Amino acid sequence: MKNTFGNAVSMTIFGESHGPAVGAVLDGLAAGLPVDEAVIAAAMDRRRARGDGLSTARTEADAVEFLSGVYEGRTTGTAVTLMIRNLNTRSGDYAKTADLLRPGHADYTAYAKYEGFQDARGGGHFSGRITAASVAAGTICETVLNGLGVKVYTHIAECAGVQDAPLSSAAGLVMPDPQPGHFALLDASKEEAMQAAIRAAGSEGDSVGGILETIVTGLPAGIGEPWFDSVESELAHLMFAIPACKGIEFGAGFGFAAMHGSEANDPFTMRDGKIATATNKNGGINGGITNGMPIVFRTVLKPTPSIYKQQHTVDYIGRTDAELQIKGRHDPCIVPRAAVVQNSLTAFGLLDLLTVRYGTLAQKHGFPKV
Amino acid sequence: MKNTFGNAVSMTIFGESHGPAVGAVLDGLAAGLPVDEAVIAAAMDRRRARGDGLSTARTEADAVEFLSGVYEGRTTGTAVTLMIRNLNTRSGDYAKTADLLRPGHADYTAYAKYEGFQDARGGGHFSGRITAASVAAGTICETVLNGLGVKVYTHIAECAGVQDAPLSSAAGLVMPDPQPGHFALLDASKEEAMQAAIRAAGSEGDSVGGILETIVTGLPAGIGEPWFDSVESELAHLMFAIPACKGIEFGAGFGFAAMHGSEANDPFTMRDGKIATATNKNGGINGGITNGMPIVFRTVLKPTPSIYKQQHTVDYIGRTDAELQIKGRHDPCIVPRAAVVQNSLTAFGLLDLLTVRYGTLAQKHGFPKV
Amino acid sequence: MKNTFGNAVSMTIFGESHGPAVGAVLDGLAAGLPVDEAVIAAAMDRRRARGDGLSTARTEADAVEFLSGVYEGRTTGTAVTLMIRNLNTRSGDYAKTADLLRPGHADYTAYAKYEGFQDARGGGHFSGRITAASVAAGTICETVLNGLGVKVYTHIAECAGVQDAPLSSAAGLVMPDPQPGHFALLDASKEEAMQAAIRAAGSEGDSVGGILETIVTGLPAGIGEPWFDSVESELAHLMFAIPACKGIEFGAGFGFAAMHGSEANDPFTMRDGKIATATNKNGGINGGITNGMPIVFRTVLKPTPSIYKQQHTVDYIGRTDAELQIKGRHDPCIVPRAAVVQNSLTAFGLLDLLTVRYGTLAQKHGFPKV
Amino acid sequence: MKNTFGNAVSMTIFGESHGPAVGAVLDGLAAGLPVDEAVIAAAMDRRRARGDGLSTARTEADAVEFLSGVYEGRTTGTAVTLMIRNLNTRSGDYAKTADLLRPGHADYTAYAKYEGFQDARGGGHFSGRITAASVAAGTICETVLNGLGVKVYTHIAECAGVQDAPLSSAAGLVMPDPQPGHFALLDASKEEAMQAAIRAAGSEGDSVGGILETIVTGLPAGIGEPWFDSVESELAHLMFAIPACKGIEFGAGFGFAAMHGSEANDPFTMRDGKIATATNKNGGINGGITNGMPIVFRTVLKPTPSIYKQQHTVDYIGRTDAELQIKGRHDPCIVPRAAVVQNSLTAFGLLDLLTVRYGTLAQKHGFPKV
Repeated sequence: MKNTFGNAVSMTIFGESHGPAVGAVLDGLAAGLPVDEAVIAAAMDRRRARGDGLSTARTEADAVEFLSGVYEGRTTGTAVTLMIRNLNTRSGDYAKTADLLRPGHADYTAYAKYEGFQDARGGGHFSGRITAASVAAGTICETVLNGLGVKVYTHIAECAGVQDAPLSSAAGLVMPDPQPGHFALLDASKEEAMQAAIRAAGSEGDSVGGILETIVTGLPAGIGEPWFDSVESELAHLMFAIPACKGIEFGAGFGFAAMHGSEANDPFTMRDGKIATATNKNGGINGGITNGMPIVFRTVLKPTPSIYKQQHTVDYIGRTDAELQIKGRHDPCIVPRAAVVQNSLTAFGLLDLLTVRYGTLAQKHGFPKV
Repeated sequence: MKNTFGNAVSMTIFGESHGPAVGAVLDGLAAGLPVDEAVIAAAMDRRRARGDGLSTARTEADAVEFLSGVYEGRTTGTAVTLMIRNLNTRSGDYAKTADLLRPGHADYTAYAKYEGFQDARGGGHFSGRITAASVAAGTICETVLNGLGVKVYTHIAECAGVQDAPLSSAAGLVMPDPQPGHFALLDASKEEAMQAAIRAAGSEGDSVGGILETIVTGLPAGIGEPWFDSVESELAHLMFAIPACKGIEFGAGFGFAAMHGSEANDPFTMRDGKIATATNKNGGINGGITNGMPIVFRTVLKPTPSIYKQQHTVDYIGRTDAELQIKGRHDPCIVPRAAVVQNSLTAFGLLDLLTVRYGTLAQKHGFPKV
Repeated sequence: MKNTFGNAVSMTIFGESHGPAVGAVLDGLAAGLPVDEAVIAAAMDRRRARGDGLSTARTEADAVEFLSGVYEGRTTGTAVTLMIRNLNTRSGDYAKTADLLRPGHADYTAYAKYEGFQDARGGGHFSGRITAASVAAGTICETVLNGLGVKVYTHIAECAGVQDAPLSSAAGLVMPDPQPGHFALLDASKEEAMQAAIRAAGSEGDSVGGILETIVTGLPAGIGEPWFDSVESELAHLMFAIPACKGIEFGAGFGFAAMHGSEANDPFTMRDGKIATATNKNGGINGGITNGMPIVFRTVLKPTPSIYKQQHTVDYIGRTDAELQIKGRHDPCIVPRAAVVQNSLTAFGLLDLLTVRYGTLAQKHGFPKV
Repeated sequence: MKNTFGNAVSMTIFGESHGPAVGAVLDGLAAGLPVDEAVIAAAMDRRRARGDGLSTARTEADAVEFLSGVYEGRTTGTAVTLMIRNLNTRSGDYAKTADLLRPGHADYTAYAKYEGFQDARGGGHFSGRITAASVAAGTICETVLNGLGVKVYTHIAECAGVQDAPLSSAAGLVMPDPQPGHFALLDASKEEAMQAAIRAAGSEGDSVGGILETIVTGLPAGIGEPWFDSVESELAHLMFAIPACKGIEFGAGFGFAAMHGSEANDPFTMRDGKIATATNKNGGINGGITNGMPIVFRTVLKPTPSIYKQQHTVDYIGRTDAELQIKGRHDPCIVPRAAVVQNSLTAFGLLDLLTVRYGTLAQKHGFPKV
């Protein structure tokens, strides 16, 4: 339903880049769940731009203000509403090019959809700025999952042509804690080369994209629905809400096209007295439902469309061709920041599916023994 | 909501492989839309297995019976319910291996989710059989789109290692009509090699997967929503309801990871007095909303998990390792049949998004001039 | 969403009076719940017309056929689809008056909404016939509630001017089992007078309405949501789906208008070591949420609009005034039959709200101890 | 879905009485609709308490702040979020009685539902304070309806035993403009007696309830859905979100129980070349769908549960009986203020149903000629 998503737990997103605030309403949480403002602030800090040549010079404190649903550090059980004021806006940067459609951006589609009444400043509702709210809301969900023994970790699998180490094994994963001010990588030694490649593109007035990989451990088998609410459907629906996301694949993903069934199937086996699979090519999901193995998926993020190189475009008022030179403050690469968004939305989506099965109370009291 | 999807137009799917019937409820259609049983029968025929070494020997007439919402060949405006009886079921094939979990299948996840009460015969609710209902319902939607000048075409971009011709140009597409009994290909000359490769895998008791590509033309700019109901979110949600689908990418998709922004952006230009883009790397979608260019996306389908080769697995009753030799009638490749499903679900999803914007009446009376 | 209602458990209704079938899809049930065809048949029998001067001469066997979601007498956890074939249709009765709008009926509104494409035979989708499907689906829900110790009982509080005995006390209710072929009354001795009054109206070619009262016991405190999903909102939404329902009131209902707060408030007290209220003027609901006392509500059903007396109306084709003499087979009173519908929809609505709170598994395993 | 309601237009409500703010998210509006802050402020002012012995001494300026979706006085087409800060909170008044359950209030049900984690201050999420947000959001909807020629008017049909003039005729209604500082009455001369009766109850430490009647003119025939989304279902669902509402009836409502069909049916007739009904006992709705006559419905509001008289109750911590003497600032009657809430929610509900049929664009461009 437009800006609202979720079945048992729902998230509503609102805000414009240069409007008063961005925010979210998170409904369907049990009462009494911890809302740790320091944990949320840490996630906001990881998503935050640093103005260091890797991300936009628009840096904001991103203080999260709770309007409802939280009392004395815990959820009350009613809708949690949070907002983040937009403080550092410089709409003037956009005014000069307001009649020129920025290629790769939503300028034209917003104009077509909203008939010219959109708030176009800074990309309006289409700005990556809106994702700040989803990080705050999703981090609350992630804390709930952690309390249930579920861990969600997203690393930069590839960026600017530099690759992180691969997930060598589906089981026995040790996922590093996110480090403030550092890229989320399995192999921290790749950070230097990755940052250098991003800065190189940025110094040419260009931008780069990349691939994010998310791993989720600790989910029991049996979460998700067989048809329209498969785990893949739910997570893909959410990931395509990340502005630059243009693809998603689960497990072996597009690699399945070149496999035979005998390679693609994950043999079942007994491990520590429990049913498991010997490999995890299906990314922890069979028939749309978790099988108890780690969930693994990858998304591709296109390069930031805001580049400083001159581009051909159209003056949509005059309906004539034109050349565009973008000003403003833009990220040469949003992949490291998007990793935080992807992680948060994954946590939200899985908490929703968990709650469909086990009910709201299980968020606090754990998976029922049946 | 579980087996129901859609905002302004919704589809509810039901049925089990060896139950009495599979079917669908399609709600939100305007009254007076044509329901052409011959067109639906032709789509059912394209999805149908042929028992020709390319698909399962379980062939069914797949007669579609309308239970509600259709009167004298037109929609009445109330919920359209259709069902397809399951006639050719041989549950005995499955009985022998009922305690062994088939790798790559939903046997274990269904067991975990439904606590042993699932109808496991023939894969139950997880069988590709259920997609027959979505083809019938989606074809009604496709007819409505056609009446609005929108065309949806899905071809087998790759199967068993054989590739179809590429989409050479985003504009000026001529999409071949689907031919009964033939694969949906841009280059018909690839069919022979593709079928040979499938048969080769089948003759080894193995199976293959592939890649489907869908192109949609004729949609105006401005369809879709910016955040959770982006065109990508809606279509991805639906495509992951196709049992074997494990990935989806729009436009340049995973290719974006290696591009710079200056390559990834589609320059705007004037064409025939209208705003267009010179390239279509974004697959007709900016900011989640159609930009008037063709929508282009690809999905990957994993190889059919039912293979005749011996596989390692688990006896889930005894909780012991075991070897499995699958019997029954299975497709060595479901890609050609899944193309029909993907096409139908795409039509449904886009009709839903269209209706969100323009209302039910526009389905019959066309896009309003505003 | 049009013909679908519910959050955690959803019901989709379809069918037309003279179409092939009416039916329902019930989604969100746990696997392994009993589906007792005899219990459903008994409910269908209570809703069934008897052709005895009290209800329409169109009597049908109303055999319920399950299309999906039920296997070996239990739910499988997937969508339960059921249908009831329409066998005894005499569309010819309607043909003579097809151009005349029947006062009090949906002929005109269906025409306005569906632009003339509605299936008008026998009232089409607006016929009370459709409620047969909701009784079958709701009875499955009622059985689940009974398994949790929740009882739902609906009696005819008033019909044709004859009143049943009042609910003397909110606690300690003994609700009589429904008797086949008899009206649902607290005081069985009122049946004769009630039936006589209905027959008297019918013999004049007229019809009567009445008031139904539903009592639900055994629900724990804490079910329902504070704002849009209050117990009152959910139940009212469902009850107004009953074709003739024009009003609903909870507890003291419209009687509250003449009370002071000191009369309207139910004092809290301890009873058997548990918190209870001394009176139950609020009908078991405070702030939209159950308080552990019996839920009590009343609906008013207008007299059947199909009467044999001559009525003034309009020929909507010619747009001229006209006189109408209705033929066909109609109930002089649908109140006794609607009692079964009200009971079933109440059970469905409460099972939905229960599941929102406790999850699907609680349907089978009981309310969790937290 | 809990705190969200609506199909094509949705409203999400959040906030607690003594939390930072109450607010709403309104999604599904077309772009370019006027948002007149003066009109909203006027509605807020009518809902506002006056501290005059008729309503609570907690008076607030109720300034509405827009967080998103509004730019230069018009909707942008994205989610409109608004909030109203809670400024005048005196939580101390509640502290003394925090362990005693207030009869008629949601104290106990909130405790049961939220397991003690609810924000109980001032009634928390159950306070009438939350309705301020729905008035602001609903007034935006009402302005849109007005632009389409639809008028919504709610008057106090009865309060404290004093009745307003009856609606003498369904057609040709002249509805008085609401007067700031005055009760919404058809007959302004009844105000004095009504206020006196309320003050009399208040002076005894008691409270009164009443009946609100809403009339809607200008809606075309054909709005609403036949089964679960009937106009009655939609409006009833919303009205029971008003904290004190315990009943609703459409048209003749509970009066239908004593009628014969020949009295209850509204004869169709031609009027000014259009189909109309001679009477309007069905309140403008047949089969759940508007028939072009005015929509008429009444709700009953129970007396404010907060009274100053001593009441018997329970100490829920100690689980012992107790006597309660309520302090704080409370309305002896909320009926005049609830009239504004009812009017706003009605406007919202009808705009939603209108949009389901005609699409978002019709909100701005008018009903399409088809």
